[in-house]
Amino acid sequence: MVKVDLDQKNMVIEGLIKAREWEALVTILKKMPVVEVVEVLRELEDPELLEVLGFFSPEEQGYIVSDFDADMQVELFEALGPRGFAGIFIHMASDLRADFYQELDREDQLKLLPYLDKKTRENVIRLSSYDPETAGGIMSTDFATIMGDMTAAQAIEKVRSDAPSKKMIYYVYVVDNDMKLHGFTTLKDLIMAEPETSIWDIVYKDFAWAEVDEDRETVASKIEKYDLVAIPVINKYGQLAGIVRHDEALEVIQAEQTEDMEKFMGIVPDDESLDYPETSVLSHFRKRITWVASLAVIGVLSGMIIHRYEEAMSALIILALYMPMVADSGGNVGSQSATVVIRALALGQVSLKNWLMILLKEARISLMLSVVLGLIAFGKILFLSWETDIPEQYSLFYLAFGIALALSLQVISATLIGAGLPLLVKRLGGDPAVAASPAITTMVDITGLLIYFGIAVTLFF
Amino acid sequence: MVKVDLDQKNMVIEGLIKAREWEALVTILKKMPVVEVVEVLRELEDPELLEVLGFFSPEEQGYIVSDFDADMQVELFEALGPRGFAGIFIHMASDLRADFYQELDREDQLKLLPYLDKKTRENVIRLSSYDPETAGGIMSTDFATIMGDMTAAQAIEKVRSDAPSKKMIYYVYVVDNDMKLHGFTTLKDLIMAEPETSIWDIVYKDFAWAEVDEDRETVASKIEKYDLVAIPVINKYGQLAGIVRHDEALEVIQAEQTEDMEKFMGIVPDDESLDYPETSVLSHFRKRITWVASLAVIGVLSGMIIHRYEEAMSALIILALYMPMVADSGGNVGSQSATVVIRALALGQVSLKNWLMILLKEARISLMLSVVLGLIAFGKILFLSWETDIPEQYSLFYLAFGIALALSLQVISATLIGAGLPLLVKRLGGDPAVAASPAITTMVDITGLLIYFGIAVTLFF
Repeated sequence: MVKVDLDQKNMVIEGLIKAREWEALVTILKKMPVVEVVEVLRELEDPELLEVLGFFSPEEQGYIVSDFDADMQVELFEALGPRGFAGIFIHMASDLRADFYQELDREDQLKLLPYLDKKTRENVIRLSSYDPETAGGIMSTDFATIMGDMTAAQAIEKVRSDAPSKKMIYYVYVVDNDMKLHGFTTLKDLIMAEPETSIWDIVYKDFAWAEVDEDRETVASKIEKYDLVAIPVINKYGQLAGIVRHDEALEVIQAEQTEDMEKFMGIVPDDESLDYPETSVLSHFRKRITWVASLAVIGVLSGMIIHRYEEAMSALIILALYMPMVADSGGNVGSQSATVVIRALALGQVSLKNWLMILLKEARISLMLSVVLGLIAFGKILFLSWETDIPEQYSLFYLAFGIALALSLQVISATLIGAGLPLLVKRLGGDPAVAASPAITTMVDITGLLIYFGIAVTLFF
Repeated sequence: MVKVDLDQKNMVIEGLIKAREWEALVTILKKMPVVEVVEVLRELEDPELLEVLGFFSPEEQGYIVSDFDADMQVELFEALGPRGFAGIFIHMASDLRADFYQELDREDQLKLLPYLDKKTRENVIRLSSYDPETAGGIMSTDFATIMGDMTAAQAIEKVRSDAPSKKMIYYVYVVDNDMKLHGFTTLKDLIMAEPETSIWDIVYKDFAWAEVDEDRETVASKIEKYDLVAIPVINKYGQLAGIVRHDEALEVIQAEQTEDMEKFMGIVPDDESLDYPETSVLSHFRKRITWVASLAVIGVLSGMIIHRYEEAMSALIILALYMPMVADSGGNVGSQSATVVIRALALGQVSLKNWLMILLKEARISLMLSVVLGLIAFGKILFLSWETDIPEQYSLFYLAFGIALALSLQVISATLIGAGLPLLVKRLGGDPAVAASPAITTMVDITGLLIYFGIAVTLFF
């Protein structure tokens, strides 16, 4: 293998760009993976970009522009005009082409359409009509089909003759004259089979598929479960409408994970853009304020509880001092158990049926946590409060014991709430991740205050 | 397409199992995807399982057992004994076979080895020797190779003749006599090319590869970046040592995401098992206690600050009442900004170079948050505390203003700490996700108390 020194390659490319040696540059670019070509082109100004693109064939142009960011695509569209861009557009990957089309405003869409051939035009309009959160919204129509009554040799010939470079042909779909999907076979099976083998003998009729309006997350997990290179998408008539490729599934899984993490932190997910630098300050603000403001309002509840015990705190100031400690421990362990349960649910390691097992397990874990954290709290109070003003009738030892006991009970209750809340949300048909960490902290604050002052009043007054 | 009713299919399968009609059952199973076959077999007892497996060919057995859970594999190993199991073992997928081998204890490994042919034995020992966190640890050796001086037709013939069912042949690797990797071509290119085309004319020489000791996360992101079906793994001599498939990349990304989320919640990740039900209560406890106990100890610091202001609180009990509110708001917004920054770093949307942009953006977001949350706090205090015991020289209005001001400043400082801490950890070479939410909460508690009492002492005393 030629282990090309990356820095050296980059230097050569930079040199060619500076020298404006576009043809030599393209000779090098043509040997590079498309992603890297795009990285190089991203650095060019518009006029240079157009010049360089001109050295590629229309098909290669379509392939490269498919990989552009939305911004770069729109810029190119403006530089070339609808007529010029149409030549590239018809060669783009069908799913990415539809994504770009949706980025254009209505006016530009109407300018572009007349320059497209009928097939492309219909394809783009159809693909753009699906909800982006569904299988239809992420599928591509660049798939290969054969008929069941062909032989393996005929099938290979068919695939060969109508597979331009962008098509995924590792899976070949078996359809009838009405495009109804009857199964699929793999290019590998076609190659390995004797040329005279009938397709019906090597077709997989029992296979995973998705429906056009199926949630994209479900589609991605099917691809994951069955280790597929692509999954076929069918419409309500059982016709093959498109395929979703494995790399699309990976992107969906990444996006859903970001959403889960954000939801869990009480950030309202945003369809427009999940990209940090490109999201405006205002929409960052909007994504975050909803939860924290709601929680601040709900905080009135804990405020009312605290006020009920105002006199107790005046009489025994040490109670005020350790109120935050008890609340914090609850928030920490509650968020931990919620994280663990939400993740186990998301990965399918546990389901709602296991709720009792989960709560029992968390109960046992919380017992251990409560002993350790209770002991630490006890030691901490003795260490910190030996100078604190305590009314004569109390011993510090007794007060420390009571506060540590409250903290231990709070740890147990918070762990169970943290584990139980996501289960409850899921049971009610919601996404467990919305059992957000701030929500758990707030809820656990309230129970914590009740436990804390409940114990204090019982033991000390 | 035959849209098989799933319930009906399951009923048929259940019926056949009850009737012990193993041969008929296997006829149906042979048409099903392997994952689903394993789901059916999982329900069987050992003697039945052995009987059913017997109806599959050794190669099919290897394929099915590759997909078993570790527990099921070990059970089967014990039921069949080393000699019987070896017949299945040699037909398993090389990467999953090595994983299973590592599950066995030393004694069982030594029992199994003598029954393996030399090639399998060497392969297993070699693959098991790599760190599971590296490319070597997740790679498979089931790849297809050709020589550069072949023609397309010869290459297809070579792939056809030495590709058993488990091999990935969509990418075909071009090597020399020393197994040095010179590039790859795709099965699609081979099919599309004229039979007489020389491989050198269609080989990709500039391509993404991984090294055996490369971190598996980097390997997964290369597969993602280049949209690959598989990535070749080379050893230090430039020889092709294995491939990592796209489905493996997906698993790695899922596992790393769980790790990130757990780290962020102060849960110490655990190599042994990330599966919730299979992890013991004790190791769940161990994974969680480290952080919360450390934070409880660090909490001594905030305890000391609170004690310093004990007298202020005795004099003005309203200060004690709103101390938790200020701390909580800080924890919430701090965790939010940390989540956003950690995720943007993990997805490569931002890098350390952007630290100033990030902090400036967060500063602007925090200003907006502080205004809204400050106003809510002001209203809340007026609403809750109109009955609170306030010394004559103060007006509730003035106190509410001071406390709300402290909360606003706390929101700004906490947002910046939440965004800055992950950046700092990354700068120091650590994983930003360890800037855990509990750590941020604790840190923000301390700064919050300083801000709170600092403002209170300045304005009220």
